[in-house]
Amino acid sequence: MNTIIPVMLDESEKALYLLDQTQLPEKEIFLVLDKREDIFEAILKLRVRGAPAIGIAAAFGMYVCLLHGSYATINEMVEDASSLKAYLASSRPTAVNLFWALERMEKKLLSQKQLPGASIEKILASLKEESYAILTEDQEMSKAIGEHGLTLFKKGMGIMTHCNAGGLATSGYGTALAPIYLGQERGYDFKVYSNESRPLLQGSRLTSYELFKAGIDVTVLCDSMASIVMNMGKIDAIIVGADRIAANGDTANKIGTSGVAIIAKEYGIPFYVAAPTSTFDLNTLTGDDIPIEERDGEEVINGFGRRTGPIGVKVFNPAFDVTKASYITAIITEKGLITDITTQKVKAHMNQ
Amino acid sequence: MNTIIPVMLDESEKALYLLDQTQLPEKEIFLVLDKREDIFEAILKLRVRGAPAIGIAAAFGMYVCLLHGSYATINEMVEDASSLKAYLASSRPTAVNLFWALERMEKKLLSQKQLPGASIEKILASLKEESYAILTEDQEMSKAIGEHGLTLFKKGMGIMTHCNAGGLATSGYGTALAPIYLGQERGYDFKVYSNESRPLLQGSRLTSYELFKAGIDVTVLCDSMASIVMNMGKIDAIIVGADRIAANGDTANKIGTSGVAIIAKEYGIPFYVAAPTSTFDLNTLTGDDIPIEERDGEEVINGFGRRTGPIGVKVFNPAFDVTKASYITAIITEKGLITDITTQKVKAHMNQ
Repeated sequence: MNTIIPVMLDESEKALYLLDQTQLPEKEIFLVLDKREDIFEAILKLRVRGAPAIGIAAAFGMYVCLLHGSYATINEMVEDASSLKAYLASSRPTAVNLFWALERMEKKLLSQKQLPGASIEKILASLKEESYAILTEDQEMSKAIGEHGLTLFKKGMGIMTHCNAGGLATSGYGTALAPIYLGQERGYDFKVYSNESRPLLQGSRLTSYELFKAGIDVTVLCDSMASIVMNMGKIDAIIVGADRIAANGDTANKIGTSGVAIIAKEYGIPFYVAAPTSTFDLNTLTGDDIPIEERDGEEVINGFGRRTGPIGVKVFNPAFDVTKASYITAIITEKGLITDITTQKVKAHMNQ
Repeated sequence: MNTIIPVMLDESEKALYLLDQTQLPEKEIFLVLDKREDIFEAILKLRVRGAPAIGIAAAFGMYVCLLHGSYATINEMVEDASSLKAYLASSRPTAVNLFWALERMEKKLLSQKQLPGASIEKILASLKEESYAILTEDQEMSKAIGEHGLTLFKKGMGIMTHCNAGGLATSGYGTALAPIYLGQERGYDFKVYSNESRPLLQGSRLTSYELFKAGIDVTVLCDSMASIVMNMGKIDAIIVGADRIAANGDTANKIGTSGVAIIAKEYGIPFYVAAPTSTFDLNTLTGDDIPIEERDGEEVINGFGRRTGPIGVKVFNPAFDVTKASYITAIITEKGLITDITTQKVKAHMNQ
């Protein structure tokens, strides 16, 4: 399968090898980074994006920086790792996976330090292993979602997706796109419709790019065209990712998702959410409790090199919306499917 | 009321005075045109757009060209008018109002020629009068739609609109925006939400521009945000224009309209279509019989001065969609309202 792994070690295994997603789809530039300031900048400027991909970048990034450090003692390395962790974590303070991956790398370092015969070389080897483990675990999670998701699809289906919950946000397969990639490997010949996903156009810039590169039949359309393509009978199922799922299954995802779900229900088309169980927040009881981030209005009226609204006009620019569980046919996780979604079924699934 | 009349005679009444809508909202440039080639170019390049506005531009344009002609005899003028009509009509061969207005001007000329004591001066005076009549009739039609529409609204309401069915497409008041302008004059203090209307962004470029200029509280949002603002309780009614209405009330309008109507129904929000009775096509029985124009995919992935989709990717770019009558709470025309829409009620309304 030709999925793009957006962040890896380079061939020498001494530098981070990172696809600069801010240049897509105009330019496909891989950056080779081995300085902490450059790795910090890449995360800060969203050159790497998507919770899992950011975590992987942070883990490999920490390994690379420590590899290039010069330490007289293990303690010097431990000290540097601690400041490195604080430094990289400050690049995107709201990215939970960033902290999680850095924390995990530091824990590994501290546990290795305690071992008899510990050396800087041995510790570095184990940190390299740990960063690869984070990558591999994400790939396994994606593939498990892909397998469960694929049971819902038939050969030749038309599938709509919104935003980018694909390989570029993860380690290559994605969440919503995982069943599509897996189906492609197995000759399912899906026809994918990618909503462009205004205002930041992740659907046309990223999703259509990665599916097109992988040889999958993909068509870009404006968000406003979802209704007509469903009415034309081109769509058999819709699958999207999730930013946060409440205990009752209400799902926050990229702005526009709830509208697509409502239209799908009207046309009798199944609507699926694909996300790892780590996306569930059982302390959030329903979607009403999920705060919606509002972003700068300039993204809407001055986003792509040309002003498209009058100076001074009011703009509303929420980043996410909440799709009520009653519009979701199934949630697909690495553990399986949740259908006829209720709080009880979500809890049972998490404890599975 | 500060509505913008997008096309008029200039102060000297010897040239066309036309707002160049291709420059909006970045630049507000009025063109003063008195050469036939320049008037042709302005229509061809969509500097003036919207069926009624194009008709008005053609009528004033024909008058201005004949005014600047030098004719030895009335017959010479008649001959020139005939070639002028063919020339201007070829600028946008699918614009029905363009033919209609040119035809009407020519008929006026021919009938005036028959009058006893006819002279070039007298004929020109009657053509000037006729072109003003076309403008005035459009303004009266808009105001009648505005009056009927306003009966559906209450003070302080939040109103969503899609695309531009406003003054810029007509003679100042528009169709969908007419009740909003009229309400503004009467202290209704509406809060208008203008969907940007991808791919060509008439909602953010034109609707928000003209409402903002008129001092109306307007907020721009992406099409993908319609669902969240309805869910937040900000929208009390939706009003849009129409490109063509079938005998059963099914309505073709800018792409995205049918999705907004479906979402509105789900939230229990009334959805109105405002259009003159000339928009009805009783020979088209239902919306299924309305052909949908597909436009160049580059408008979607290369529209803002920056490429936003990979080169070579497939794009679907339908210009319109059809909203079924069952989603339309009422159609507002210059004659009144059609509610509980059926073919019989549409026919009765037309014969009113």
